[in-house]
Amino acid sequence: MAASIYPKYPPDLTKAQFDHLITSIKDYSIAHGLAVRPQPSFVPPESDPAGVLATTAPVTLFPSLFPRACFDEAKAIQKAYNELYASIANDEEWLKDIVEELAEVDDFIAKLWKVHLAVKEEGYTQDLSLGLFRSDYLVHVEPSNPSAKPEVKQVEFNTIASSFGGLSEKVGDLHRYLYNTSCYPPTPSSSSGTASNLINTSSLTPNHTISSLSSGLAAAHDHYGPSKTSNQKCIIFLVQDPERNVFDQRPLEYTLQVTHSIPTFRVPFSSILLNTSIDNTHSSRPLLYTPPHSPESVYEVSVVYFRAGYALSDYPDETAWTARHQVERSCAIKCPTILTHLAGSKKIQQVLATPSSPHLSRFLKDPAVADRVHQTFTNIYPIDDTNAGREARAIATDEGKSNGYVLKPQREGGGNNIYRAAIPKFLKSLPESHWKGYILMELIEPPAQENAILRNGEVQRGQIIGELGIYGACLWRKGENSPTLLENEEAGQLLRTKGRESEEGGVAAGFGSVDSCLLIDV
Amino acid sequence: MAASIYPKYPPDLTKAQFDHLITSIKDYSIAHGLAVRPQPSFVPPESDPAGVLATTAPVTLFPSLFPRACFDEAKAIQKAYNELYASIANDEEWLKDIVEELAEVDDFIAKLWKVHLAVKEEGYTQDLSLGLFRSDYLVHVEPSNPSAKPEVKQVEFNTIASSFGGLSEKVGDLHRYLYNTSCYPPTPSSSSGTASNLINTSSLTPNHTISSLSSGLAAAHDHYGPSKTSNQKCIIFLVQDPERNVFDQRPLEYTLQVTHSIPTFRVPFSSILLNTSIDNTHSSRPLLYTPPHSPESVYEVSVVYFRAGYALSDYPDETAWTARHQVERSCAIKCPTILTHLAGSKKIQQVLATPSSPHLSRFLKDPAVADRVHQTFTNIYPIDDTNAGREARAIATDEGKSNGYVLKPQREGGGNNIYRAAIPKFLKSLPESHWKGYILMELIEPPAQENAILRNGEVQRGQIIGELGIYGACLWRKGENSPTLLENEEAGQLLRTKGRESEEGGVAAGFGSVDSCLLIDV
Repeated sequence: MAASIYPKYPPDLTKAQFDHLITSIKDYSIAHGLAVRPQPSFVPPESDPAGVLATTAPVTLFPSLFPRACFDEAKAIQKAYNELYASIANDEEWLKDIVEELAEVDDFIAKLWKVHLAVKEEGYTQDLSLGLFRSDYLVHVEPSNPSAKPEVKQVEFNTIASSFGGLSEKVGDLHRYLYNTSCYPPTPSSSSGTASNLINTSSLTPNHTISSLSSGLAAAHDHYGPSKTSNQKCIIFLVQDPERNVFDQRPLEYTLQVTHSIPTFRVPFSSILLNTSIDNTHSSRPLLYTPPHSPESVYEVSVVYFRAGYALSDYPDETAWTARHQVERSCAIKCPTILTHLAGSKKIQQVLATPSSPHLSRFLKDPAVADRVHQTFTNIYPIDDTNAGREARAIATDEGKSNGYVLKPQREGGGNNIYRAAIPKFLKSLPESHWKGYILMELIEPPAQENAILRNGEVQRGQIIGELGIYGACLWRKGENSPTLLENEEAGQLLRTKGRESEEGGVAAGFGSVDSCLLIDV
Repeated sequence: MAASIYPKYPPDLTKAQFDHLITSIKDYSIAHGLAVRPQPSFVPPESDPAGVLATTAPVTLFPSLFPRACFDEAKAIQKAYNELYASIANDEEWLKDIVEELAEVDDFIAKLWKVHLAVKEEGYTQDLSLGLFRSDYLVHVEPSNPSAKPEVKQVEFNTIASSFGGLSEKVGDLHRYLYNTSCYPPTPSSSSGTASNLINTSSLTPNHTISSLSSGLAAAHDHYGPSKTSNQKCIIFLVQDPERNVFDQRPLEYTLQVTHSIPTFRVPFSSILLNTSIDNTHSSRPLLYTPPHSPESVYEVSVVYFRAGYALSDYPDETAWTARHQVERSCAIKCPTILTHLAGSKKIQQVLATPSSPHLSRFLKDPAVADRVHQTFTNIYPIDDTNAGREARAIATDEGKSNGYVLKPQREGGGNNIYRAAIPKFLKSLPESHWKGYILMELIEPPAQENAILRNGEVQRGQIIGELGIYGACLWRKGENSPTLLENEEAGQLLRTKGRESEEGGVAAGFGSVDSCLLIDV
């Protein structure tokens, strides 16, 4: 953990201030749909068999500090990131080598690739793709140079089911409401860098995720063109069932239904084959949806928005893969296609972020833009026989050098990371032939800060880490060498804050919450 | 119960339609704050000590049928009702006789009157009064003439804490959303009076309670004029604590805070003396409010909005009466004043609605307007030595004639009503000297209809009664002979629906819900 670069924050509260703040949060959140279905550990399912209870989504009591320059930079480069990932998804040639290598060690990737190959053989009938992306960052402060400017460094790039766009706009509204109604202690008249005057109208961050993400879906719906069958068009959200986080997804549906007047339906991922079919009388293979609640109405699906299907657990058997194949081979616009889904895998991030990697310039032709994106990478090395792999070995086998790194297994899943000085001993315990199953990543060192989180009716206070996500909405047409971007927008932000995993104590690790950025000039 | 004048309604649902409808209601309601804190019988307080859980407010699955002409008439006469009750509250002379008689049998009324007299003696310092009223109606169909047009007949007129304005707008939005997203079975192509085509855009009723009631409070805030002390002005909501129905009240606060930029605070009725005081350095007696969460901030209260203080249980001891007295003698604008509060007592309604009563014309000078208001009265008789009282005796002691009546004790509280043919026997069991403690009211006979109510996660279906409430917002200045109306608006509607108390079974009586009107031409 880097030392704090921030002033003391958040302000201390008296008992009366604390009680008033909590009451205000509890009521505002429910009145505005900033909610989740309660966890089974909080409300056992047998106490609420109909599932009608809800509770405040886990939120921070205060907006968390975030360096203004870092926030601005992350927002500013989102369109370049959209273009980068659209270009990667467009470049099957380039993806192929990486994915096939990855497929050897990862069944999930292998199966996705197999679906793509099958559809490719048959011939894709839809050349439009929609990406609702989210690029996630931590603020990094160089431990060896604490006076250097903090920077945003990318944690990961999400190309499927980028969540929390619905709740993140609302938590920003909540924090602004709390500020405007004097729920935060007032600014003292002497305002020389003290904590309590940090909150003001220009440090609170406006957000527009709900309208922006919905507009992305609506744009794809429009670009789909007229119905190929005689049926009305619709958008479907593929969802998990049950879904506790439904109040994050619903605002996008309501905006599509009410503002854009587009019929929009939720379809459980497990019900794809039950409720959709391909109309084989049309060579373009339109996807038809028949609502179970209205079997006489048939819709033609313009856009399939995946809010499920990203995890192996969504595919309990071959039927699920048949379902994914049905969607992929249809001419519905996928958000995302399988190629776009694959472009979001950790391995792609590693390939791009390997020092001296030539790949970024393949996709971003403007060197200045490529350089700006590159600045957000932390170094990620393979541990193999390449030049970069040999460089990684030199670091990972030296206790001193390995101190700023984390060793991660290549496969998705996490939880088995090896940190810092423990890396050399761990590597030595493995046969060298297994080393290529790992990547070595430079640690991002976020500055220390505190906040408090309301979750399940309990408030936990302590050291926290806030991960900034910037959404992007991008619609492109497949091109020979590069995609044609029809829409390319930065689509708002998320601050997801959790307790810091550390020996210093504080908020229990893993207790995540939605948060908003309080910008600070540091 | 009158026979139904309506076509078969609501439409039958398949299992899939029912499930989809319930899921849509459960999610839409929480996403839009159409919520309540759960009853202790549903969620025991020890399961949620912090009180963070919420659930869908009790709602009907479908909007209930309501005759269009009745709806239009009730809306059209609301301004006249506002004027009527403002005029009654303005006419202390007239009120005095009625209230003093009532005070003999009702301690609560007596205590309210005593507070008024004390302030009158000291001298009122505020000549503005705000009324946020609600006039409640049932549809009446004359049993002896089933082909006569249905009419609205008034159940009661509320002058204090008229509730459900926040939720009623949202339930109308819910029903419109359900219609627009095809959650109700679609209209069949043959549309000759079948039930399912009753729901359409022109039969669903737009509503605007939240903005209208908030505007009434904001108008009073503005008319209060500049702060008399050096403090910022604010509005306070006097509330019960705890309050399960907080999501009905909060939307008004949020609109005042966000749209009107007026500081607005909730003050438990029991905390008035703790958190407010009168600034005695000003002869006008401004009311000051010091928020417990911000003791260094002092506000001058422009408007006190009572959402508590209407029931005897809010006054457990003399301190509560001292508190009411403090508010009444301050120069804050009261919503309502004690005179306005008293104007809403059942006895006033009876005096106005007694056959051949001369009182209505005292307050409504235009005979056409007075006649229109009069049409909404059902006959209400005292059982005393007046002419009307003798008429009442003749009805109440005759089994045949008493069949269209209900006998109610004069005192507030209810639950001891005697119906129809049981009235003569009951009266004969009482000494005649006690008869004047009762009133005889012509029964309102609403037409039969069915609906289903979602409450605590359970759906109950059966015969229902829907009570229409029309809100009014009225601000007036006390005048010598009549008040000067500064604002006079019809402020939206409520349909509150409950199971019919009847031997026919159906939805359990008393299980109320919020509903919206589906207008029908009958």
